[in-house]
Amino acid sequence: MRLAALLIALVMVSAAFINRPKRVVFFGDSITQAAVKPGGYITRLTDMLTQKGKGSDYELIGAGIGGNKIYDLYLRMENDVLAKQPDVVFVYIGVNDVWHKRTSGTGTDANKFVGFYEALITKLQAANARVILCTPAVIGEKTDFSNEQDGDLNQYSQLIRDLAKRRNLPLCDLRKAFLDYNLKNNPGNKEQGILTTDRVHLNDTGNQFVADLMYSFVTAN
Amino acid sequence: MRLAALLIALVMVSAAFINRPKRVVFFGDSITQAAVKPGGYITRLTDMLTQKGKGSDYELIGAGIGGNKIYDLYLRMENDVLAKQPDVVFVYIGVNDVWHKRTSGTGTDANKFVGFYEALITKLQAANARVILCTPAVIGEKTDFSNEQDGDLNQYSQLIRDLAKRRNLPLCDLRKAFLDYNLKNNPGNKEQGILTTDRVHLNDTGNQFVADLMYSFVTAN
Amino acid sequence: MRLAALLIALVMVSAAFINRPKRVVFFGDSITQAAVKPGGYITRLTDMLTQKGKGSDYELIGAGIGGNKIYDLYLRMENDVLAKQPDVVFVYIGVNDVWHKRTSGTGTDANKFVGFYEALITKLQAANARVILCTPAVIGEKTDFSNEQDGDLNQYSQLIRDLAKRRNLPLCDLRKAFLDYNLKNNPGNKEQGILTTDRVHLNDTGNQFVADLMYSFVTAN
Amino acid sequence: MRLAALLIALVMVSAAFINRPKRVVFFGDSITQAAVKPGGYITRLTDMLTQKGKGSDYELIGAGIGGNKIYDLYLRMENDVLAKQPDVVFVYIGVNDVWHKRTSGTGTDANKFVGFYEALITKLQAANARVILCTPAVIGEKTDFSNEQDGDLNQYSQLIRDLAKRRNLPLCDLRKAFLDYNLKNNPGNKEQGILTTDRVHLNDTGNQFVADLMYSFVTAN
Repeated sequence: MRLAALLIALVMVSAAFINRPKRVVFFGDSITQAAVKPGGYITRLTDMLTQKGKGSDYELIGAGIGGNKIYDLYLRMENDVLAKQPDVVFVYIGVNDVWHKRTSGTGTDANKFVGFYEALITKLQAANARVILCTPAVIGEKTDFSNEQDGDLNQYSQLIRDLAKRRNLPLCDLRKAFLDYNLKNNPGNKEQGILTTDRVHLNDTGNQFVADLMYSFVTAN
Repeated sequence: MRLAALLIALVMVSAAFINRPKRVVFFGDSITQAAVKPGGYITRLTDMLTQKGKGSDYELIGAGIGGNKIYDLYLRMENDVLAKQPDVVFVYIGVNDVWHKRTSGTGTDANKFVGFYEALITKLQAANARVILCTPAVIGEKTDFSNEQDGDLNQYSQLIRDLAKRRNLPLCDLRKAFLDYNLKNNPGNKEQGILTTDRVHLNDTGNQFVADLMYSFVTAN
Repeated sequence: MRLAALLIALVMVSAAFINRPKRVVFFGDSITQAAVKPGGYITRLTDMLTQKGKGSDYELIGAGIGGNKIYDLYLRMENDVLAKQPDVVFVYIGVNDVWHKRTSGTGTDANKFVGFYEALITKLQAANARVILCTPAVIGEKTDFSNEQDGDLNQYSQLIRDLAKRRNLPLCDLRKAFLDYNLKNNPGNKEQGILTTDRVHLNDTGNQFVADLMYSFVTAN
Repeated sequence: MRLAALLIALVMVSAAFINRPKRVVFFGDSITQAAVKPGGYITRLTDMLTQKGKGSDYELIGAGIGGNKIYDLYLRMENDVLAKQPDVVFVYIGVNDVWHKRTSGTGTDANKFVGFYEALITKLQAANARVILCTPAVIGEKTDFSNEQDGDLNQYSQLIRDLAKRRNLPLCDLRKAFLDYNLKNNPGNKEQGILTTDRVHLNDTGNQFVADLMYSFVTAN
């Protein structure tokens, strides 16, 4: 009797999971916080999935907070991500870890950036989430590497690429994609206005560009 | 039968705890890392307890790592503190959170300092540890508040005092004690050499001074 | 004949100088740039002199530019000060030399601050100007030395006091006066709103307070 | 009689100048301060001129001081450069203007860097010196623009290139030359050890490389 009841419960739970849409959490900073607004990259991804008739297969959840660095993600991971039992987590962080070195003296040392990132991945994987790493796109869109913090942003992006390789995780290399796009579409070497409004945050073109880049990562598997 | 066995086990475990010396962890940065060496404040505390015939009542454990800030403590708390099942934890942190703003652009914002500190306390208390907060003593020993980062260090110390009050926790106010000592013993307004070797790290007098200040907190209860 | 003409010319020039009002230049940053507006401390000083019937004895000239540090003053001294052949020059600088360390990584090292200040004084004195040194008042009005940059601002103010003593120059110690005022009038330990609008720039009370402090320096000799 | 004496004096002075070796001052920071030592780039330039039989045609003078930024050059220009009545002045500055933003919060804002540089050129030209501008070579030799301050250093180098163009002055583009050299000779993307000992200061190869680059600028005209 009891065994039978247990089996039925298990089947029901499994069914709930099977029928449950795939839950995708976007974990990041102000860029991701804005992404759930109309025109934001998460909103666009949801629309794209709906247009392809996959709207009910996915549940996209924004978990971005302005000013966040890698260690802020670590602090709020349990409440804001793990509590949602995600199937997939995009980690899109790093701009503030670099930027705040110059604006407020409170950036993140490279070795600690990697240390917290590793710990974050370990905990997300322990909760059975598929983790997708993103490189921080830009702090300034000039294409000749003369944006003030290009050197550091290149370094941190490389650390993330190394991490993806080391942990065998998918990499959504926004920084590389943004640079390639700007090399074609920013002949005037402007520091903003191509994919961003203000050197960092995405304009409409930028939000669509990120949505396009992330789409295949969302629908993989 | 089973109940009896359980009760016996419980008694045995309790007995083990009762006989176990009180375990005190000192959780901090390079100042605490150096404190377990000969002449360090933890070594001195151990010696003081032994001299008073209380050597077997306490087990003092250093858990300091150079360069640590509040969020580094949070990251390694489980492995380095909770795993040791401490009865008491001194949290002695804050110098690098302020200092690194100037030396490497990687200090800690005040609001995030408090946020991580709160989370740390909550987890330590959940593990039944008695938590004792320490203010960061000095970055420079000049007594006229002209050490470069005195303003910020005063602010962070006040945040810790407020936190102790809000959480009803004992406060070991090293910053206040160091200033009072220097006002009496540093008539030349020197920036180092009174209680520190280099504006930050403790000399022999400084280690004894800290040990004296902490002694009553260790033996309380 | 020629000698006679020369003597006449000399007398005429001297007369022009004798009748000329005493020219006082206020050389500084944004605080001084705003001081020539209605309600500003220079405007108030002019009004005070007029009320005492001394309006025609003095010509007060603002030479403040926002964001200036000591070396900016040195660069534009010839055009903006010496060209006006001043009798008296107030040097009111130092806030940005300290502040910009934190806001943009472009403050001024203490030893270079002194070096440029010395060179500035030497050139102003060579042009027969009486030089009056001012300490930078505040970056934050809290009275417990917990404004973030109090330590550094205290240090630079002390360097200016030492300089005044070494060069035997009058010192208008705004920093000391502001602190004394706040100790009496800022019981809530607020960081702005007592003498400043925004921790740095003067409100009406602050402008009057500075005008009152400077008045006797203007009218001395 | 008097006219004759004057003419003779004039001829003698002219002769002195005609026979005088061309005086070349290297005006810069610690890189140039070290350049007069054995093996340094100025010492090498002198040796190269001697080997070509031009040793008596040139007098090379080092005027480098460690830690100098553009405004430090401006402050000491009269004593250290103009007093030597140079025919040619190499201005080799910019590393500390960028570097100190990160190491001590006391770098130089881009607009002020240009302002002081313009003023320096104007004064040097007024003294009839031929001015040669150099870009700051490297802070780190990695070739993928991931040295932390590459972005800023690229920006300041571009400002110097623009300045050379605007003022129609010869440009010794060390930064471009160093990058080209490293792209060929630093396949391991090391941050030091190719042309520098420590990411900034020149090793033997670096000193010879700079001497080779500067040689034609010295002997031009």
